[in-house]
Amino acid sequence: MKIQLAQQNYTVGDFEGNTKKIIGAIQKAKENGADLVVFTELSVCGYPSADLLNFNEFIDNSLKAVHEIAAHADGIAVIIGAPERNVSPRGKDLFNSAYFLYDKKIQTTIQKTCLPNYDIFDEYRYFEPAYEWKTILFKGKKIALTVCEDIWNLGDNPLYRICPMDQLMKEHPDIMINISASPFDYTHDEDRKATVKQNVLKYKLPMVYVNATGAQTQTIFDGLSLVFDKDANLCKQLAQFDEDEACIIVDDNGKVDSPIIESNNELPNQQLDPEKLDPALNIDQVRKAIIHGIRDYFSKLGLQKAIVGNSGGIDSAVTLALACEALGKENVLSVLMPSQYSSSHSISDGEQLCRNLGSPYYILPIENIYHSFLNTLQPVFKNTKPDVAEENIQARTRGNILMAIANKLGCVLLNTSNKSELSVGYGTLYGDMAGGLSVMGDCYKLQVYELARHINKEKEIIPKNIIHKQPSAELRPGQYDSQSLPPYDQLDPVLYQYIEKSREPDEILKMGYNPKVVDLVIRLVNKAEFKRHQFCPILRISPKAFGPGRRIPVVARYFK
Amino acid sequence: MKIQLAQQNYTVGDFEGNTKKIIGAIQKAKENGADLVVFTELSVCGYPSADLLNFNEFIDNSLKAVHEIAAHADGIAVIIGAPERNVSPRGKDLFNSAYFLYDKKIQTTIQKTCLPNYDIFDEYRYFEPAYEWKTILFKGKKIALTVCEDIWNLGDNPLYRICPMDQLMKEHPDIMINISASPFDYTHDEDRKATVKQNVLKYKLPMVYVNATGAQTQTIFDGLSLVFDKDANLCKQLAQFDEDEACIIVDDNGKVDSPIIESNNELPNQQLDPEKLDPALNIDQVRKAIIHGIRDYFSKLGLQKAIVGNSGGIDSAVTLALACEALGKENVLSVLMPSQYSSSHSISDGEQLCRNLGSPYYILPIENIYHSFLNTLQPVFKNTKPDVAEENIQARTRGNILMAIANKLGCVLLNTSNKSELSVGYGTLYGDMAGGLSVMGDCYKLQVYELARHINKEKEIIPKNIIHKQPSAELRPGQYDSQSLPPYDQLDPVLYQYIEKSREPDEILKMGYNPKVVDLVIRLVNKAEFKRHQFCPILRISPKAFGPGRRIPVVARYFK
Repeated sequence: MKIQLAQQNYTVGDFEGNTKKIIGAIQKAKENGADLVVFTELSVCGYPSADLLNFNEFIDNSLKAVHEIAAHADGIAVIIGAPERNVSPRGKDLFNSAYFLYDKKIQTTIQKTCLPNYDIFDEYRYFEPAYEWKTILFKGKKIALTVCEDIWNLGDNPLYRICPMDQLMKEHPDIMINISASPFDYTHDEDRKATVKQNVLKYKLPMVYVNATGAQTQTIFDGLSLVFDKDANLCKQLAQFDEDEACIIVDDNGKVDSPIIESNNELPNQQLDPEKLDPALNIDQVRKAIIHGIRDYFSKLGLQKAIVGNSGGIDSAVTLALACEALGKENVLSVLMPSQYSSSHSISDGEQLCRNLGSPYYILPIENIYHSFLNTLQPVFKNTKPDVAEENIQARTRGNILMAIANKLGCVLLNTSNKSELSVGYGTLYGDMAGGLSVMGDCYKLQVYELARHINKEKEIIPKNIIHKQPSAELRPGQYDSQSLPPYDQLDPVLYQYIEKSREPDEILKMGYNPKVVDLVIRLVNKAEFKRHQFCPILRISPKAFGPGRRIPVVARYFK
Repeated sequence: MKIQLAQQNYTVGDFEGNTKKIIGAIQKAKENGADLVVFTELSVCGYPSADLLNFNEFIDNSLKAVHEIAAHADGIAVIIGAPERNVSPRGKDLFNSAYFLYDKKIQTTIQKTCLPNYDIFDEYRYFEPAYEWKTILFKGKKIALTVCEDIWNLGDNPLYRICPMDQLMKEHPDIMINISASPFDYTHDEDRKATVKQNVLKYKLPMVYVNATGAQTQTIFDGLSLVFDKDANLCKQLAQFDEDEACIIVDDNGKVDSPIIESNNELPNQQLDPEKLDPALNIDQVRKAIIHGIRDYFSKLGLQKAIVGNSGGIDSAVTLALACEALGKENVLSVLMPSQYSSSHSISDGEQLCRNLGSPYYILPIENIYHSFLNTLQPVFKNTKPDVAEENIQARTRGNILMAIANKLGCVLLNTSNKSELSVGYGTLYGDMAGGLSVMGDCYKLQVYELARHINKEKEIIPKNIIHKQPSAELRPGQYDSQSLPPYDQLDPVLYQYIEKSREPDEILKMGYNPKVVDLVIRLVNKAEFKRHQFCPILRISPKAFGPGRRIPVVARYFK
């Protein structure tokens, strides 16, 4: 059977655009003489469509698109993903389905069984799980067709009671096909390949695995579609992050007509879910993910221009460099906003960075505005000592200036916060926490440094001094991060245990971390829930990003 | 059987406080000579605990609390709610369970079957549904014990495949008991009573229904625990919003020893899910819900003082009045921040309001700060025409002043946005959209007026002029809301159809609304997703509030 893999980047709700893209790929598959072309999970409407699935019209539009696509399934079979109405009165009203189109008709649909409802996933919010399983007979072969999570229910402690492939095996299929929307995180590509391979080893069938690509707000899908032959040799792997396609033949013996990339007896892929934070882990992938994340956010919203606050520090430098890479240097304006507490190097470093990047910038000192605020607030502030209130005024003045320029010139403010700051609440709401998209809110400070070194690999883009100077918010004389926070090489590893690994304080202490640091860090993280609640979408690069993947009540008693 | 209903207000994660409260109620029940005392769903840890349930220590603490409580179940049986570990390797690791405690031991547990995963609910994120059903034999009677949603799976199109009461009926129980955490919205009290009554009518058994009370961040539980006799007469109804208790006897004939409040043949309660927006619907309840919501937000976070921006307009007036009612007038500071575009009445009305309330206020004009911003921005803004950028600078300057005072004096900024503004994005991010808690973000503008009239019912608290003047943001000369938006009596009904009723544009048009209004409104709602994404928790009073109950992607193509 000749199968075309179509790894595409869709926009949620863009039925016209998605359908056009899908029909284009069917055309190409026909030109290749393919028997079958395979698209990804919920390809017709985009994944995740979230509560748009609650609108009848959204489902109607999906079904209309399926029928439009079916008209092109002449002489070729097409597998696409779309919501399906549950005709039974019992259970939720929708299924997450794979549609098998042939002879210009919907021949059959396969419903997803395992509905992920953890981390960023909410599928049980919309979909009823399958309760029947059947293979699809096509050109004399039986296809075991599953949707994404359906092939992940392995191991000794499976999350779901039913494993759909176990059910499908009763019909002795010839090939497995899985359509996915499996997002990127820096552990997930190897994990995903290992899972697909485990299925091939368990069921002794060749497998075609097609995954979505492209960013949907904070969630970045990274493609890497795979083909394994019956003997668990990896024969094809599509691009990471970009759209890609391939046409392969799976023969009657379950062999694939492509050279073997990794043989079946290669050591099982290392499980990339490290016990301890490794800031260098896949930093090249992280950079690419962020670039794609920024690019799709802008292009899918029809926007071009970004603005970034340029403090001369490492976070804004890396954000600016990544934004220039994603959007083009001419589209990224930065603003230096020195105050009386700014060091001279914060301006010279920030300017040097823009010269290196070739990106436009303004220098707008905030001292006058700051003094206006202090004068105006005199009736309230008189007889009080300077504290965090005065510091936050400066941060919020900068936020206001950036937003004013964004409004005036039609830019989106890119947020420069890192995950360490966001964790412990070391940032000012409506100040440096402002912005429409957080570029590095899922990167710990140590990872920001890794990104900086990676960006500088070939030539110095980020001035060395930015990388080597002591981190400071420069909101009062002689202020350094280290006065408020443990050093980042102590802070970040503890945060990793609490956030990524969901380990509670006692467990973290037992791992040998400094008790004072653990106690302080966990208290700070919990106290900052109200700040994170109001934060913008964060490009997700880790297995546990702040945002929809981590839902902690604002009002609660926590561990500390 | 003598049964004590314990309707209590818990704090999520406050095992010490919750346990103490529960043991206190057991003591009272013993004094009343009760055979059994019934608490609410997940009472031990608080509902909803969200991702705190992912921490082992959180579950350990819950179980420890259950055992501590069990030690007090001597001579009395106790039903409490707590998470339970799933000992089977298959499925999720937790159940949402009711624990039956007696003789100082956990006698048995009942697992919840129907796990709500719509609107604000995420239970399938944490819990495995039950797959076994059994009654509990106690003092010669068989109790059919269920948890919250378990009794809601009625009707022709049930959400879940299994109805646990149908299963339990196979054992011929004598009484139904349901422990709940069922939140308030202005349609839900009658709906809830009707559902409980429907169960009594269907199964012909008496029913004790105990519901939680108190606010958990945005979600407000309103108690109203119920007792029906076997003949579907309502015999007891506990307080709405407040903690309450009752001790009743259900005799061998399913009769209850309390006077009948509503007889079984009273007309079925009107289904309070109106097709069209009725701004006056249950406005008294809405007011009480908001008061409790504010109060619990502050008390559970250990806070006292609030600050409110006082524009002299209706939204800030109602917010201020409700905050004073909830927290005490001395704890609510308001700040008037006139600019050159402020009308004289905005100051005099704002001051009069504070005099009526007896609450402290400052007047801090923002003109100087605004000019500082314009001067500083001169290099960017020169040769441009004044537009929304200049307007937003003023709003954000006010946000900055309010936050600065909040930081300095240790207050929480209460947000004054209403649902109409939030819907169409008629507000400034980090400006008037700032704040830690949104008091009226789930009230449409027409409902804000209803609240104002309700507050003024006995005497004029909100100056009449505030209620009668034309709404204006006062950010440019002669600005009125009506220049940017349809009149609120046209806007709000369309918003209600789109937000609360999830009706798509075509459907709304068919209902006869003005096509221009519908088109504009829906486009504005969709365009404002990015703003709402960064908004603070909103006290939920409707069946569909912005926040966790409505999850729309920021990046998408929408209907318009």
